Amino acid sequence: MWLFNRPPLKQLQQRYSFTPPPEWLERLQKSSIRVNVGGSASFVSAAGLILTNHHVALDCLQKLSTATRNYASNGYVAKTRADEVKCVDLETNVLMSIEDVTQRVNAAVSPGMDLAEAQKARRAVMNTIEKESLDKTGLRSDVVTLYQGAEYHLYRYKKYTDIRLVFAPEANIAFFGGDPDNFEFPRYDLDVCFFRAYEDGKPVKIDHYLRVEPNGINDGDLIFLSGHPGGTSRLNTLAHLRFLRDVQNPFTLDLLRRREILVSTFSERSVENARRASDGLFAIANSRKAYIGLLEGLHDPAMIRTKAESEAALRARVASDQELQSSSGHAWPAIENSLKTDRAIFVEWSLLEGGSAFNSRLFRIARVLVRLAEEKKKPNPERLREYRESNLESVEQQLYSEAPIYTDLETAKLANSLGHFVEALGAEDPLVQQILDGKSPMNRASELIRDTKLLDVALRKRLGEGGEVVVDASDDPMIKLARLVEPRSRKLRKIHEDEVQEPLRQAYAKIANATFRVSGEETYPDATFTLRLAFGTVKSYEDSGRHGPWRTTIRGAFERAAEHKNQPPFDLPESWLMSNAKLKLATPMNFVSTVDSIGGNSGSPAVNRDGNLVGVYFDFNQQSLRWDYLFDDRQGRSICVDIRAVLEALRTVYKADKLVSELLAK
Amino acid sequence: MWLFNRPPLKQLQQRYSFTPPPEWLERLQKSSIRVNVGGSASFVSAAGLILTNHHVALDCLQKLSTATRNYASNGYVAKTRADEVKCVDLETNVLMSIEDVTQRVNAAVSPGMDLAEAQKARRAVMNTIEKESLDKTGLRSDVVTLYQGAEYHLYRYKKYTDIRLVFAPEANIAFFGGDPDNFEFPRYDLDVCFFRAYEDGKPVKIDHYLRVEPNGINDGDLIFLSGHPGGTSRLNTLAHLRFLRDVQNPFTLDLLRRREILVSTFSERSVENARRASDGLFAIANSRKAYIGLLEGLHDPAMIRTKAESEAALRARVASDQELQSSSGHAWPAIENSLKTDRAIFVEWSLLEGGSAFNSRLFRIARVLVRLAEEKKKPNPERLREYRESNLESVEQQLYSEAPIYTDLETAKLANSLGHFVEALGAEDPLVQQILDGKSPMNRASELIRDTKLLDVALRKRLGEGGEVVVDASDDPMIKLARLVEPRSRKLRKIHEDEVQEPLRQAYAKIANATFRVSGEETYPDATFTLRLAFGTVKSYEDSGRHGPWRTTIRGAFERAAEHKNQPPFDLPESWLMSNAKLKLATPMNFVSTVDSIGGNSGSPAVNRDGNLVGVYFDFNQQSLRWDYLFDDRQGRSICVDIRAVLEALRTVYKADKLVSELLAK
Repeated sequence: MWLFNRPPLKQLQQRYSFTPPPEWLERLQKSSIRVNVGGSASFVSAAGLILTNHHVALDCLQKLSTATRNYASNGYVAKTRADEVKCVDLETNVLMSIEDVTQRVNAAVSPGMDLAEAQKARRAVMNTIEKESLDKTGLRSDVVTLYQGAEYHLYRYKKYTDIRLVFAPEANIAFFGGDPDNFEFPRYDLDVCFFRAYEDGKPVKIDHYLRVEPNGINDGDLIFLSGHPGGTSRLNTLAHLRFLRDVQNPFTLDLLRRREILVSTFSERSVENARRASDGLFAIANSRKAYIGLLEGLHDPAMIRTKAESEAALRARVASDQELQSSSGHAWPAIENSLKTDRAIFVEWSLLEGGSAFNSRLFRIARVLVRLAEEKKKPNPERLREYRESNLESVEQQLYSEAPIYTDLETAKLANSLGHFVEALGAEDPLVQQILDGKSPMNRASELIRDTKLLDVALRKRLGEGGEVVVDASDDPMIKLARLVEPRSRKLRKIHEDEVQEPLRQAYAKIANATFRVSGEETYPDATFTLRLAFGTVKSYEDSGRHGPWRTTIRGAFERAAEHKNQPPFDLPESWLMSNAKLKLATPMNFVSTVDSIGGNSGSPAVNRDGNLVGVYFDFNQQSLRWDYLFDDRQGRSICVDIRAVLEALRTVYKADKLVSELLAK
Repeated sequence: MWLFNRPPLKQLQQRYSFTPPPEWLERLQKSSIRVNVGGSASFVSAAGLILTNHHVALDCLQKLSTATRNYASNGYVAKTRADEVKCVDLETNVLMSIEDVTQRVNAAVSPGMDLAEAQKARRAVMNTIEKESLDKTGLRSDVVTLYQGAEYHLYRYKKYTDIRLVFAPEANIAFFGGDPDNFEFPRYDLDVCFFRAYEDGKPVKIDHYLRVEPNGINDGDLIFLSGHPGGTSRLNTLAHLRFLRDVQNPFTLDLLRRREILVSTFSERSVENARRASDGLFAIANSRKAYIGLLEGLHDPAMIRTKAESEAALRARVASDQELQSSSGHAWPAIENSLKTDRAIFVEWSLLEGGSAFNSRLFRIARVLVRLAEEKKKPNPERLREYRESNLESVEQQLYSEAPIYTDLETAKLANSLGHFVEALGAEDPLVQQILDGKSPMNRASELIRDTKLLDVALRKRLGEGGEVVVDASDDPMIKLARLVEPRSRKLRKIHEDEVQEPLRQAYAKIANATFRVSGEETYPDATFTLRLAFGTVKSYEDSGRHGPWRTTIRGAFERAAEHKNQPPFDLPESWLMSNAKLKLATPMNFVSTVDSIGGNSGSPAVNRDGNLVGVYFDFNQQSLRWDYLFDDRQGRSICVDIRAVLEALRTVYKADKLVSELLAK
């Protein structure tokens, strides 16, 4: 997960005798796209064609769908450009430049400041740097915290917000095998989707995009992934891993189980319910399976031992060097100390400030309206990070989105999460009692969703643009609820920022600096949903004593469907069943490699030595779930859709010849 | 939920001008059957024909099924008696007599005893009474604790253990509408199953059985239920309800969510997996939905207020009477005090002594073997309750059951529950570390299930009959695990029995006696999975402003299936689709009444004034989930299969004419 401004040239030369030229890196960087709902993508033609995963596109497909037209499950092929359908509220970013601003950020924090002052000063300088950059370049500008606080880089992105749907396959081939086959290999998924970026109503003309390699890739080949891994915890101390093991992951998994059962029972009630909830259900089940693997890793004494040994070795090195010991030796106890605070507030903080107690889009809208009014009054450097001037456009795009909101699903989700809240804080808690207002969680949720007027986007705009006076005057019950929660929620946020995040940041910066000193700057920072470069080898692996294939074929998909009598989730779509005779069944479908990845990488382009596109990353196997804490390629593998299967399906199943021509154009 | 030895004659006369004659009560009592997996049933012919629910029969159907013959999902019609299939390990009981033994039990506990002595003395006298009764009558004899400890009655049962399957419909009509329609009305379920009791290889000839009323029942009619409600908490104090709300129900619901997701993901992997897990999945989803309703009730400030007011009124009455105050006034604080202890140990006690940490039949077998060897050495009065002499036959029937055990499902369940155990007690707990033996929960579970030999019933018999020396010498890993857990588990059990159960029992006895003094003995005890009589009226109800029907029809089932395009869980079986034209579509299918019920009542016969069978209870609606704490028939309703639908389906869909003739024989 290397930084593009610090690529692993030495490692690549040593292991693969390969040194990518600067143009190679620039093209890959500027062809790579971040999809802000939480995935990756790439430009694959000069006319702004974008390739990503179906499951990354799902949020958009879902929002476009209605009871009578289901893009998410039935797929779509735009016959002409005029048929390309505009997404409701998708934001995509392309990284244009990186600037190291560590010195300027650190300079704002003077040695005498206490934690709260340091936190405030750092936030102020970051908000200011971003605003300056936005004003100067017009580009989205984010200061990214690296190595948990040792470095700060300014990332500048070109934003595309007019994104149109070009092609999506049916959900049952995109996610063939469903939850049972998720995080497994062999796999047979056509998990792809094509969009096109528009500006001023026309397809964008771009300089940097990836060429498709129609011959794909082979066993043993060097392969690269360029994408946006969401987050890892590899640099975490042992105490921090224990916090994840004992507090954070169990809480998150509990939340996911509650939501999965809620949403799946909601879905079962009718075909229309299932459609309304499908996007959410996929994401929840996917995370639940991932978290079970993460916790299984943290419960594995062997993994904990490995981490403990490497930490002990580093601490011994630090202790043996007086200067290092005095600069960094106290970092480990400082981390333990702030995690003690975090243990005490974590659940309440997650429920209130994280919003898990109010799992409803209408509540989130109400909260943003209340906070926007409050924050906009303040000078930019003093605002909460997400309301900084340079981010307001993105906040408003979400706030005023016309994406459909289903009140039945909102009610069910809100009731469920209110029940969780009562359970966690206790029915006697005064805020709990104020929130329930004498009703059971279900009755209170029904009332709130029934009576709020925030479904109305025009009303949201009036409130959002009206500012504090207008929002304060609103007696909308959801706004009132958001206001009621605000004091306790903000208090928890402040404790979390000042007494957890800030000391962690300072301590991790010290550990990172000690590590640089001890082993040279040869480590990459933990993932931060920013662009990273990973490399590896196309390679099979052994599981329970059996050696699997390095790739599957289209034939395999038909065989697996037949094994399961074509029953969901192993049912091939009609379009594939009809094309059986014409398809080249030996075409490689999915393949595995040792390339590093994590959630957020979904949709990342996979390229060969020539920098040409050979596949699209969409998943990794169960053995790599613990990559969150420790990379290990003995069995861990990333899984890509082979570009040859994409071309074959577009040609033979979907008759999308124009799209194929565009992809193969020189 | 009235006792058969104390029937509600006054209430019936007052409200319905009806006094059931003694023969009426005797016939209903002796026609009623307890199904020991947790349900009810009744005799419906002189030749031992038994009617119950499909979902009560599911455990048996499941154990009879194989990969190629699936009784549980495809149903079964025995053409002749020779085709009736013997269940693997079903135990059924018929209540023959009740004797009040309160004085003898109380006499064993002398005033000076401390809690542990009182607990021991009470257990001893109960074990002794049961053994004497068994020796004298040959009948299964259980001392039942009523009013949480105010009374003790000796129940004597005739046991039937050779139970054979006569008829089961397909699962999709028995459970039409699945989880979405569970606890809902209107409903369209043929949730019935017929068995026959055999003795010495022949159908039993019995004197008491219910006659079928082919004309069914009508709106407004008086109706009775005779069955085995499993447990209620209506007499619980407010502090005790808070304990359920804050500790017990959240823990149970969390357990159910974990299991539901585990078992449903296991099921999705293949058709065979789904078959292996179907029984478990039904039970889990059903309980999960029930517990959500229970917790929603406990989170409803209005319900808590109602309970608080009635408790305050009783306590005021007690306080105003010096004698009552000195005999019962301290009962409420005593309950709060023992619940404090329970709060401290509950989770650990449930995981270890309750066995939730080791969710595997093979573990349960190992534990019973270890305990059986230990307990058999002791004199009968000193043994743990479940190993008392009079219960050993039932213990052994389960222990040596030939019912199939699926190692893949066992591994998945054990891994999941071990993970829960690590989470709850913490990875640093010494017992957790000993149990995991340096492996992750998944790896440890795989190893245990792979290496144990307890699948072999002959080995179990050798161990069970060999006694302590043989069991102690065993190096079977599951036996070793059960031994490892034993000291801490027994210690928790002792705390729970001496410091929670015993003081609760003493305090509740005092509250019950105070209640009897204040309001006369007009209350029935909480449900205890023993035979009870309930009465009510066939009656529709209003929900969200709409008045529903009092009954549905067969036509409604076809309409609902069509609405859902006959997709699961709203798919009618082939046999029904083919019979559409011939079925009398106006036949009543399911109906609602105000009769009181709770889990365990499933399969109970519903009879009219004449004591004749008009339906089979199989569910109640969401509004009655809180009946656990408070009966309320404004909206709460019990749901029965109408006997007319049973007869019509047997005749027209299943061509089971012999069965119909047997049912209608005079």
